[in-house]
Amino acid sequence: MNKKPFLNTKAYAAFNAANPLGPYQLERRTLGSHDVAIVIDYCGICHTDIHQVRNEWGGSLYPMVPGHEIVGHVQEVGADVTGFHPGDRVGIGVMVDACRSCSSCAEGLEQYCENGFSPTYNGTEQDKKRLTYGGYAEHIIVKEHFVLHLPTHLPLPSLAPLLCAGITTYSPLRHWKVGAGQKVGIVGLGGLGHMGIQFAHALGAHTYAITTSPHKKADALKLGAEDIIVSKDPSAMAQHANSFDFILSTISAPYDLSAYLNLLKRDGTIVIVGAPNKPTELGIFDLIPGRKTIAGSLVGGIQETQEMLDFCGAHNITAEIELISIQEVNEAFERMLKSDVHYRFVIDMASLRNT
Amino acid sequence: MNKKPFLNTKAYAAFNAANPLGPYQLERRTLGSHDVAIVIDYCGICHTDIHQVRNEWGGSLYPMVPGHEIVGHVQEVGADVTGFHPGDRVGIGVMVDACRSCSSCAEGLEQYCENGFSPTYNGTEQDKKRLTYGGYAEHIIVKEHFVLHLPTHLPLPSLAPLLCAGITTYSPLRHWKVGAGQKVGIVGLGGLGHMGIQFAHALGAHTYAITTSPHKKADALKLGAEDIIVSKDPSAMAQHANSFDFILSTISAPYDLSAYLNLLKRDGTIVIVGAPNKPTELGIFDLIPGRKTIAGSLVGGIQETQEMLDFCGAHNITAEIELISIQEVNEAFERMLKSDVHYRFVIDMASLRNT
Repeated sequence: MNKKPFLNTKAYAAFNAANPLGPYQLERRTLGSHDVAIVIDYCGICHTDIHQVRNEWGGSLYPMVPGHEIVGHVQEVGADVTGFHPGDRVGIGVMVDACRSCSSCAEGLEQYCENGFSPTYNGTEQDKKRLTYGGYAEHIIVKEHFVLHLPTHLPLPSLAPLLCAGITTYSPLRHWKVGAGQKVGIVGLGGLGHMGIQFAHALGAHTYAITTSPHKKADALKLGAEDIIVSKDPSAMAQHANSFDFILSTISAPYDLSAYLNLLKRDGTIVIVGAPNKPTELGIFDLIPGRKTIAGSLVGGIQETQEMLDFCGAHNITAEIELISIQEVNEAFERMLKSDVHYRFVIDMASLRNT
Repeated sequence: MNKKPFLNTKAYAAFNAANPLGPYQLERRTLGSHDVAIVIDYCGICHTDIHQVRNEWGGSLYPMVPGHEIVGHVQEVGADVTGFHPGDRVGIGVMVDACRSCSSCAEGLEQYCENGFSPTYNGTEQDKKRLTYGGYAEHIIVKEHFVLHLPTHLPLPSLAPLLCAGITTYSPLRHWKVGAGQKVGIVGLGGLGHMGIQFAHALGAHTYAITTSPHKKADALKLGAEDIIVSKDPSAMAQHANSFDFILSTISAPYDLSAYLNLLKRDGTIVIVGAPNKPTELGIFDLIPGRKTIAGSLVGGIQETQEMLDFCGAHNITAEIELISIQEVNEAFERMLKSDVHYRFVIDMASLRNT
């Protein structure tokens, strides 16, 4: 068992000093009988990390260790752990615990736990007291139920974004039964959108990238899109009016919902996984004449996350990433705010150990 | 065959003079081989009539004969009509024709006809030229496919509102599979809402009326509601938070969508059939954490309207009405704008003949 604190506090203090949360000493959790102790090799950077580090949504809990796109390998397992062994490649997503007894948990939908799941960071354990600390760190201890097996033949750093960006897009595509014969649009070609295009295509749908950026066409086609639709081009939007079965919106900037509803055919659905901070205007007359639907979706349950990872293994799907050191995190945040990333930053945690 | 014009122009001119559309002479349609000529006995007054007579939605077509909640009896049938005979009790709803060849029509969803259905009034025939004239009249000629059989044992005037208010609420309850074991809310206790409560209850759901008016409790219980929830009472709304499977919103005044979304449980759906003129604010964060859904719905197809009428026959469901003469129409409009009607005005067309 590792004798060091589970966070390298010296390196993390430097990161926090720049962030500016200040240095602190984190309490180390003891390995329980159902726990898995994991060495973190890589951690993706999600937009959520920026919002929460900067307290842009309010209610941030400090000290904070961000990061919920965690991949690594098992270091040690508790006495009752049966599904994992030292050396296994594993991943941790946005949840590390839930009540396991409510109706949502019973259905494998821990992300909708009626008593509140424990987020991987910026939240508390199920005791509602001890803070949870995320993946910009050397180690993490997580209950077996929330640890995921990773495909063994794909490059490890490129799997990290699957744990949030991947499952967030995969889950609604599966829940709303996207598949062959359907025309599907993915709005936004960023960390989430570039996963959504790959999944929709692999599920057999005719997939279109809907983006403000015409220069992303080559990338979109490479990821599996039939074509792109430039959302700022009214004639392109008009050409595709009333033609989509399903649209997945991954953008978090405010946008014109009406324009996307107009792309849906009768009984079509738009699912929103990227949430603008401000309310959006909804014209009810955009819904009624075609019995159209708007829905939201939040990541995915543990069972479905494992299904998604297996699906990625079977279809050789990974994220497109830029690998950085922990020392480059603050610069990465700034570049993400300018959408200057193809398509996800992933931190190499070896850089933390070398600090 | 009736030798008179199908509208009693003298009486109708008087009505129009008050409205103030001016007197006019309407062209009479010839009975075609697939047509049914109907004597109109009663016609319900829908809020849409007020909006369209007054051109509040824009694009109103004059001369206009309002009315799309029509009940009466067959006077004469065309040579190829097989399903109707003189004397049959029949109804006409909001549509009198559609293309009959698009995919929506092929599925029996003429209300979503991709080439545009012909509304019963304030629209055109499928030639996109000849105006259609509605039910505030003595007679109407309609293609057999759009004529509906009425239950024979229920009072005829109380069936008129089923043709719009009835099907508009029945269709979404059926499409979203409302039934036993579900908790269902009907927002608004007016012409539509009082039908929705009866249908949801008859379908086996635990049904609640959600209203701004505490004094409507006795009526709501009589219609089949378990209880009412006063939407202006924050503690009542909080008590029912996250508990509804399905909510049907029938109100057309602007309202706080967030408050109703908060009543839905995970995977719950709110369907909106009453459309405010102004856009509503939608907070995406009200949808994401419970995978909640907002949808719209427009009346129902012809086959489903017949199913609804048969359902009413089997369950003895009718509208609660106030029967008026054609001479009282303008006063009725004013009272409806004050929600002063229990719960639908129906015009006795004998009053038109006696003018």
